[in-house]
Amino acid sequence: MDNFVFYSPTEFVFGKETESMAGKLLKKYSAEKVLLLYGGGSVIKSGLMSRVEESLKNEGVSYITLGGVQPNPLDTKVYEGIELCRKDKVDFILAVGGGSVIDTAKAIAAGAPYDGDFWDFYNKGMAINSALKVATVLTIPAAGSEGSGNSVITKEEGSIKLGTGSPLLRPVFSVMNPVLTYTLPPYQTACGIADMMAHVMERYFTNTEGVEISSRLSEAVLQTIIKEAPVVMNEPENYDARANIMWAGTIAHNGTCGVGREEDWATHLLEHELSALYNVTHGAGLAVMFPAWMTYLADFNPDMLAQYAVRVWGIPESDDKKAVALKGVEALKNFFSSIGLPVSFKELGAKEEDIDLLVKRLHDNKGEKVGFFKKLTREDSRKIYQIAAR
Amino acid sequence: MDNFVFYSPTEFVFGKETESMAGKLLKKYSAEKVLLLYGGGSVIKSGLMSRVEESLKNEGVSYITLGGVQPNPLDTKVYEGIELCRKDKVDFILAVGGGSVIDTAKAIAAGAPYDGDFWDFYNKGMAINSALKVATVLTIPAAGSEGSGNSVITKEEGSIKLGTGSPLLRPVFSVMNPVLTYTLPPYQTACGIADMMAHVMERYFTNTEGVEISSRLSEAVLQTIIKEAPVVMNEPENYDARANIMWAGTIAHNGTCGVGREEDWATHLLEHELSALYNVTHGAGLAVMFPAWMTYLADFNPDMLAQYAVRVWGIPESDDKKAVALKGVEALKNFFSSIGLPVSFKELGAKEEDIDLLVKRLHDNKGEKVGFFKKLTREDSRKIYQIAAR
Repeated sequence: MDNFVFYSPTEFVFGKETESMAGKLLKKYSAEKVLLLYGGGSVIKSGLMSRVEESLKNEGVSYITLGGVQPNPLDTKVYEGIELCRKDKVDFILAVGGGSVIDTAKAIAAGAPYDGDFWDFYNKGMAINSALKVATVLTIPAAGSEGSGNSVITKEEGSIKLGTGSPLLRPVFSVMNPVLTYTLPPYQTACGIADMMAHVMERYFTNTEGVEISSRLSEAVLQTIIKEAPVVMNEPENYDARANIMWAGTIAHNGTCGVGREEDWATHLLEHELSALYNVTHGAGLAVMFPAWMTYLADFNPDMLAQYAVRVWGIPESDDKKAVALKGVEALKNFFSSIGLPVSFKELGAKEEDIDLLVKRLHDNKGEKVGFFKKLTREDSRKIYQIAAR
Repeated sequence: MDNFVFYSPTEFVFGKETESMAGKLLKKYSAEKVLLLYGGGSVIKSGLMSRVEESLKNEGVSYITLGGVQPNPLDTKVYEGIELCRKDKVDFILAVGGGSVIDTAKAIAAGAPYDGDFWDFYNKGMAINSALKVATVLTIPAAGSEGSGNSVITKEEGSIKLGTGSPLLRPVFSVMNPVLTYTLPPYQTACGIADMMAHVMERYFTNTEGVEISSRLSEAVLQTIIKEAPVVMNEPENYDARANIMWAGTIAHNGTCGVGREEDWATHLLEHELSALYNVTHGAGLAVMFPAWMTYLADFNPDMLAQYAVRVWGIPESDDKKAVALKGVEALKNFFSSIGLPVSFKELGAKEEDIDLLVKRLHDNKGEKVGFFKKLTREDSRKIYQIAAR
């Protein structure tokens, strides 16, 4: 096991009607001037924004609003938010929405007190030394951004996705009401499920020895998602199933599953190129790329892949580890298909003839070696995209 | 699933040589005057105290020391610490030791800024509104106190164990070096293992429906402990096994395993009477009481007990849930025996003729109903003690 720091200071306030706590929580954490950030009109139509604003007014918390954050959120909205926060002396951003809104809030939070361009923290890897406070009212369980210090933003010019992370960007609190997820369209629910499973699996596959505790915790989250996913797909208003999925999404990405191990994250990078090029939903891209990556890696480390197949999918053990591993991959693909997700380039709308471009963009942006479980070269990445295109 | 708040803000700094970070961490969290609190001479003999003091001196952190905290820690030491903290204007307590030292640090932290008697927070359930900051250098993985807001202290007069809890008592940081646990005597290692398993099982057995995520996370921690325990017993200097056990002990008690469910805690209360009366180690008492409690409860809720037996111990499923449940209990007893723990009154040194006294003390102190999975009456408690005395 590697040395690690586990630090997840976010106060998670979880359950029915918890959005009415937003005002009290902002006051508790000394918010002076709040930016309420949101995405499309659905949070307005559903009445959620009114309830959140009501809760702020009840506590006398001063705020301004900014909407229009898009999926695969763009830097243009970040610049708009930074300007607004500076002008109105905002000290606290409350993101009402899913990962795109929260990631944008974090980028604004880092950029507002910084003299240079916020992109310095993303593509130059500069450390964030100061940030506005961020909190969330989560409406889409998927990205895990409500419990992480990470943020991914798309540079509109060139459609490049870049990420950053800092303990300063961890939300101070996150309000999570599973009822808010009842109205998510089935495809978006399914994409969220793929995203949170990917967050666990990016951590699970490791060469670090002696990490039973984080392996077992990872398997626990995956098993829960696999059990509850069909329930939420069939009964969108099943509270317990929605609640289990929502909390699984947080645990998947708050660090719990990654302690003491080298994480991989190659599949996220392989996928980022897909969603940047075709503007597909991140979770759908992951449903295509994760099985492809696993199929390729089954030759490289069949033991680890077989452990996953046995413990997570209940595949019977056998001496032929690679065969066991591939049965696990098949089970994952069947699972993704069963909840309506694409598992191939064709189903996703990606094109085999773009593979050269995808490989070039990936490695030009992220370097010659990508990931850690196996450090992927351009040739490796090409083969993985080819498996996905089969 | 019930509504819940999950708040685990402690910064865990885990791994080899991490005790050398104590000074830097104290400075990061603005400590002005530190009380270094410890137990017996072992932390001095091992050189740990010197290394911690060295780290504080390197950072220019001012401190005083207080030793002599005993297992099943007494209020007399708490009063001594409170007086010292007031006199020397201490604002930060660094507990160097196991649960007894950390629990004492928390009691001092709550008592020092309070005008009344610190016992008000324990036996009257008064809320803690202010506390000195607490941090830990953990040497014994067991109590989980390094990641919890809980504290249990023994009232010397009458030997009564009482507990309290507050978010204000959660350690600001906890330094955890598995190497420090190499020298723990086997019996103490085993008692710690029973204690952390009990922390998970007290949360696991619940009547709350729809809590798959916390059930699975609980099972993950138990499975890890069951795998790693024989390794640490046979190879006390196996780093990875010690590390897995140490971190499992933290996750067992930082709230992860209890989200969204009604917890039980009857077995801890049944045991507290044993350790108060016979001064036995808490973990040893739990190894006796948990199987007895489960045996009694197998009639009350065989389904939940059977799920535990199947998922944690790999007992084959069957329609006879009670039989499956009892096989799980048997597996737990065999496991405890295999690591050298007592599983009966006789092996523990407790006396059947004291059962009347145990029942009387338990219910006189804790009320007519104890626990939640089944609210135990005096008659229930008597029967459970009788099973343990068989």
